[in-house]
Amino acid sequence: METDGTTTAAVVGASGFAGGELLRLLAGHPRFEPVQATSRRYERKTVGAVHPNLRGLGLRFTAPEDLESVDVLFAATPHGVSMGRIEEFLEVADTVVDLSADFRLPTEAEYDRWYDGHDAPEYLERAEYALPEINRENLPGAELIASGGCNATATILGLYPLFEEGILGGGRETERIVVDVKVGSSEGGAGGGEASSHPERSGVVRPYAPTGHRHEAEIERYLGTSVAFTCHAVDMIRGASATAHVFPAEPVSTRELWGAYRGAYAEEPFVRTVAGGSGVYRYPEPKAVAGTNHAEVGFELDPENERVVVFSAIDNVMKGSAGQAVHAANVALGFEETAGLEFAGLHPVGSP
Amino acid sequence: METDGTTTAAVVGASGFAGGELLRLLAGHPRFEPVQATSRRYERKTVGAVHPNLRGLGLRFTAPEDLESVDVLFAATPHGVSMGRIEEFLEVADTVVDLSADFRLPTEAEYDRWYDGHDAPEYLERAEYALPEINRENLPGAELIASGGCNATATILGLYPLFEEGILGGGRETERIVVDVKVGSSEGGAGGGEASSHPERSGVVRPYAPTGHRHEAEIERYLGTSVAFTCHAVDMIRGASATAHVFPAEPVSTRELWGAYRGAYAEEPFVRTVAGGSGVYRYPEPKAVAGTNHAEVGFELDPENERVVVFSAIDNVMKGSAGQAVHAANVALGFEETAGLEFAGLHPVGSP
Amino acid sequence: METDGTTTAAVVGASGFAGGELLRLLAGHPRFEPVQATSRRYERKTVGAVHPNLRGLGLRFTAPEDLESVDVLFAATPHGVSMGRIEEFLEVADTVVDLSADFRLPTEAEYDRWYDGHDAPEYLERAEYALPEINRENLPGAELIASGGCNATATILGLYPLFEEGILGGGRETERIVVDVKVGSSEGGAGGGEASSHPERSGVVRPYAPTGHRHEAEIERYLGTSVAFTCHAVDMIRGASATAHVFPAEPVSTRELWGAYRGAYAEEPFVRTVAGGSGVYRYPEPKAVAGTNHAEVGFELDPENERVVVFSAIDNVMKGSAGQAVHAANVALGFEETAGLEFAGLHPVGSP
Amino acid sequence: METDGTTTAAVVGASGFAGGELLRLLAGHPRFEPVQATSRRYERKTVGAVHPNLRGLGLRFTAPEDLESVDVLFAATPHGVSMGRIEEFLEVADTVVDLSADFRLPTEAEYDRWYDGHDAPEYLERAEYALPEINRENLPGAELIASGGCNATATILGLYPLFEEGILGGGRETERIVVDVKVGSSEGGAGGGEASSHPERSGVVRPYAPTGHRHEAEIERYLGTSVAFTCHAVDMIRGASATAHVFPAEPVSTRELWGAYRGAYAEEPFVRTVAGGSGVYRYPEPKAVAGTNHAEVGFELDPENERVVVFSAIDNVMKGSAGQAVHAANVALGFEETAGLEFAGLHPVGSP
Repeated sequence: METDGTTTAAVVGASGFAGGELLRLLAGHPRFEPVQATSRRYERKTVGAVHPNLRGLGLRFTAPEDLESVDVLFAATPHGVSMGRIEEFLEVADTVVDLSADFRLPTEAEYDRWYDGHDAPEYLERAEYALPEINRENLPGAELIASGGCNATATILGLYPLFEEGILGGGRETERIVVDVKVGSSEGGAGGGEASSHPERSGVVRPYAPTGHRHEAEIERYLGTSVAFTCHAVDMIRGASATAHVFPAEPVSTRELWGAYRGAYAEEPFVRTVAGGSGVYRYPEPKAVAGTNHAEVGFELDPENERVVVFSAIDNVMKGSAGQAVHAANVALGFEETAGLEFAGLHPVGSP
Repeated sequence: METDGTTTAAVVGASGFAGGELLRLLAGHPRFEPVQATSRRYERKTVGAVHPNLRGLGLRFTAPEDLESVDVLFAATPHGVSMGRIEEFLEVADTVVDLSADFRLPTEAEYDRWYDGHDAPEYLERAEYALPEINRENLPGAELIASGGCNATATILGLYPLFEEGILGGGRETERIVVDVKVGSSEGGAGGGEASSHPERSGVVRPYAPTGHRHEAEIERYLGTSVAFTCHAVDMIRGASATAHVFPAEPVSTRELWGAYRGAYAEEPFVRTVAGGSGVYRYPEPKAVAGTNHAEVGFELDPENERVVVFSAIDNVMKGSAGQAVHAANVALGFEETAGLEFAGLHPVGSP
Repeated sequence: METDGTTTAAVVGASGFAGGELLRLLAGHPRFEPVQATSRRYERKTVGAVHPNLRGLGLRFTAPEDLESVDVLFAATPHGVSMGRIEEFLEVADTVVDLSADFRLPTEAEYDRWYDGHDAPEYLERAEYALPEINRENLPGAELIASGGCNATATILGLYPLFEEGILGGGRETERIVVDVKVGSSEGGAGGGEASSHPERSGVVRPYAPTGHRHEAEIERYLGTSVAFTCHAVDMIRGASATAHVFPAEPVSTRELWGAYRGAYAEEPFVRTVAGGSGVYRYPEPKAVAGTNHAEVGFELDPENERVVVFSAIDNVMKGSAGQAVHAANVALGFEETAGLEFAGLHPVGSP
Repeated sequence: METDGTTTAAVVGASGFAGGELLRLLAGHPRFEPVQATSRRYERKTVGAVHPNLRGLGLRFTAPEDLESVDVLFAATPHGVSMGRIEEFLEVADTVVDLSADFRLPTEAEYDRWYDGHDAPEYLERAEYALPEINRENLPGAELIASGGCNATATILGLYPLFEEGILGGGRETERIVVDVKVGSSEGGAGGGEASSHPERSGVVRPYAPTGHRHEAEIERYLGTSVAFTCHAVDMIRGASATAHVFPAEPVSTRELWGAYRGAYAEEPFVRTVAGGSGVYRYPEPKAVAGTNHAEVGFELDPENERVVVFSAIDNVMKGSAGQAVHAANVALGFEETAGLEFAGLHPVGSP
């Protein structure tokens, strides 16, 4: 797979936000070399003409159909594209990492429940879902990796320790889990459109997919529980913040909660537990992880309402998309897990 | 109470955001004339030196202790101040409208459960709580009015029709009501501080009073149910947006929900029901009511989770504070309810 | 022209930002009644479906070609549209107020120098340019009014007193006038597009029309001097802020500057001079006039560089467009100048 | 100076924005190890309690007076502090890099003209000013380095090629150079204060130091010309954008301008020339360099006004402060110039 220690990589759909982030990460990665970036619209233009942070990269977009043979192909295309080209992708690359929703669910039945028909259902069970924190062991040597979605990632990472440690689960919780997510405008992609225009999108708290959000499918599949999920667009660019309201059947203490989160994440390189403390940043916040592959999770006990409020924050373009994909590729190829993902983030940082 | 058709008004605590908004509303009101604005810090400065939109007003701040005799005194002081001066206020004014939390709960026991001791508990039962939409009938002739709090107002207005129409209530709902509120930076007041500084506050989704928020007290008192309440600071200036997740015991249809909201609010001058439709603004949003005394409420049915998601949006400085206070005064004094509160708001509008 | 004291008004191009603002102003105006709002794209939809602040208005968009007979027609169409329909407009209305650039220059030669050919050059000299502060006397009874452009308005209002009072002008100034303008995203209109998308437009300081801006034409025509003009897009929604750097031939004192500005604007209902003082808002700022028809102008003397720095701030949708148009119509029809334009603005206010 | 290949570093004033950025850069630097971070206010707290991006660093603030012996001491204290402690700094460290204005001017006379008396004037001529692009040759082996200021850096980098290539300079230019700078809120530091509070600071275009800005001193000293300088606060967190308006005595072509900028910066690792082209980012913008040590410079010719408009954009916390200081230290110590400064920046990015 490697020659001279360098692993070649292609990014299909490289003019979008996730595609540009992949290029940035691969260019700064000690093991990868990005050798191809496709975009129909920007064919022959430099990647820096679209992504100004990559002006120094010297790579030009090529047509989507002219795929070169590479070690790893990252597909950052809109939902529905990869399923139609998956055979072609697997022909040109030893490993395919797909960032879309196309291969995240393992069966056609599950897919059809949430989406509208799959073009290549036979590949569904061949794909490995990648939220490395919950199924790292399946990734080494994987041929087709389905990188987890942003809102699902935030939600699953927040709740996973509670199920893992038995605070929730087994039907013991008394009430439905409510998840209220706030997302930045980069989730809408690079395209624009009236709802995404600056005058309309600035300063919003806008219900968005208030019910029936498709990420419920991933959450239900990999967390093992359904959640009552609602999304709001708020004024930031990068970031997804999930607040889950849960009602354990048995009383739980702050100490037990700390135990659950430390147990789940103490060894994880990209997950920090933040719950209380002093200063301005006492709970997880997208600003604290902007530009990084880190997730922050935390909680607050509400004895009055027998509730635990769980907070989770990620950068949707990174831990929710391109960063998670590179992380998965690192695991799949046996690289250092944090390779190319060491950026610590900025303080202060804006929108972020 | 009136001479020559003009009702004189004083604003105590007039350098804050709510105080400035009161001055603006009173100056543009056909029946009121603002004759006094107090501020210790800015004594003798023009109100326009603090509130640039009032540069043309020609009123100067006076010392807080030099109260003139007026028809109506509006107290926009921090929580805890009014209770210590309430006798003085009632001496100089026929009607006192207090914007703080000091007189919102009717009994000392309730107050003590959420706050730290009341200096004038004998006035608690003499005060009328003012969310005109739910208790308009108590306001005419009231001497002491406790204007409702911003987050409580948003929450109560969103849920009230469901209780009023029996969709919730009577212990029939199967699960706790989760209320997830997003608020703008004006809720923190004019003072500043590190957490409110622009570099730290911009672009946040920051858990803020994640549990035990004191507005739960008002909600419980006037809605008749407890709620599991969590607040997040987001990047806007004005605005409170409450999203409530409720689980009715009996299945409910969208038609029934429309019936409940229309039944409750069809005649209300300041409440609009917005639920679906086309365009960018399909649900309640703070931007749609910024600068106005309007509230928008709406809902979305989630049959999959047997849930109703309820949205409610207000401008916290207006419907959540100064506008609500003027509305209450209008009712108390027998003025046209909408007098001085006709501003329709702007489009487009920013943060807002 | 009037029946029963009400003047009927149509807004052509009513789905844009200026068109929506016109509807808002006309609906709240004591003399006008908006009876028609045209939009091809939104024909038959309520105006509130596009402009959420007008949800209560009960007016529906009609097709652009079905014009009713009205007293006043306001054209808020993109540049180039009005010139092709001007005869039609003048047939259905006694007074036409055009908000585009089509009729702002008095001769075809001037127009052609900056734009690409005029379809109805014979109407150029029949139009009255409307920056009421500089040519109010031409407006009463005007049939066709060309309302001034946003950046030109800000620039002209800032510099006009210096020419009027002889501090500049007569070829005495030693150097070119540099005007550096900062504008909000509403200047780009309601359409959207990639450069206007929230992720790309947020937080920018983006050179925009760095040279050769067409508003130089208006400035040169009505101020009587050319300026070296550069525009930057910054992160606000409404607002245009012009900073002019001028170098008078003769030394000038702060007292003389105050004299010039007071002389020019003391009686103007919509212009405030703000220069120094205490507090946060010491100079003109778009936030201080957001949502209003006010302009703030001010200055600072720089003896070290023999320079006067002139500041000017307006809301581009109001004083720079719809508000100015209504102001001009008020003058033209003999209404109170400030009718319908009394809104004082908000504090605090966001983007704004 | 080095032991085992690691150079120890202390950051004095480490709780501020520049101090936190220094810690981040040093922690990620292949040659430096940050061993001390001082802060009176946060003594004994972890640096992550203030800078959330450094939660994983495991370093605690120590008292400012307990300085350890280190190879390099970076002083990120407010102006006026370093001058009082410079002997102490030079005792504990072989190299001192001061980020304040205390040692940027070479003579006491110059210092006194702009500031209020110097406590250690004898050190002024011992300091090397560090804008590596203009005086890299003075830095190797320097004991005391005065890192350039943010607004001065942006201005000097933009104009330097024009003087270097003779397009300006030698008294040939016909008019004063006007520099209009737009800055983000991080320039105000971590402290807060009313003018920096989110409700007041959001969405501003606020004249700030409209005349007499002290950075004029550095510009005049190192560019060799005085400039008419004006600053505006705009809504971003990081970033300084300088637009200079210059009027060369001789006509100049775009080709000559490209020649000047390429000649000056083709080999510079941290300066990119951006002037025109397609896409959203056609000129220098703070967003394109946010979080990086890059500067973007560019220009546009205005033949109509015989003007060249020069644009320059940096991240004030990085190229304008901490990044520039590390760059200077790299040169001084013979490290790779770009060591620790490779971060390419993000796209999209917010405020930024």
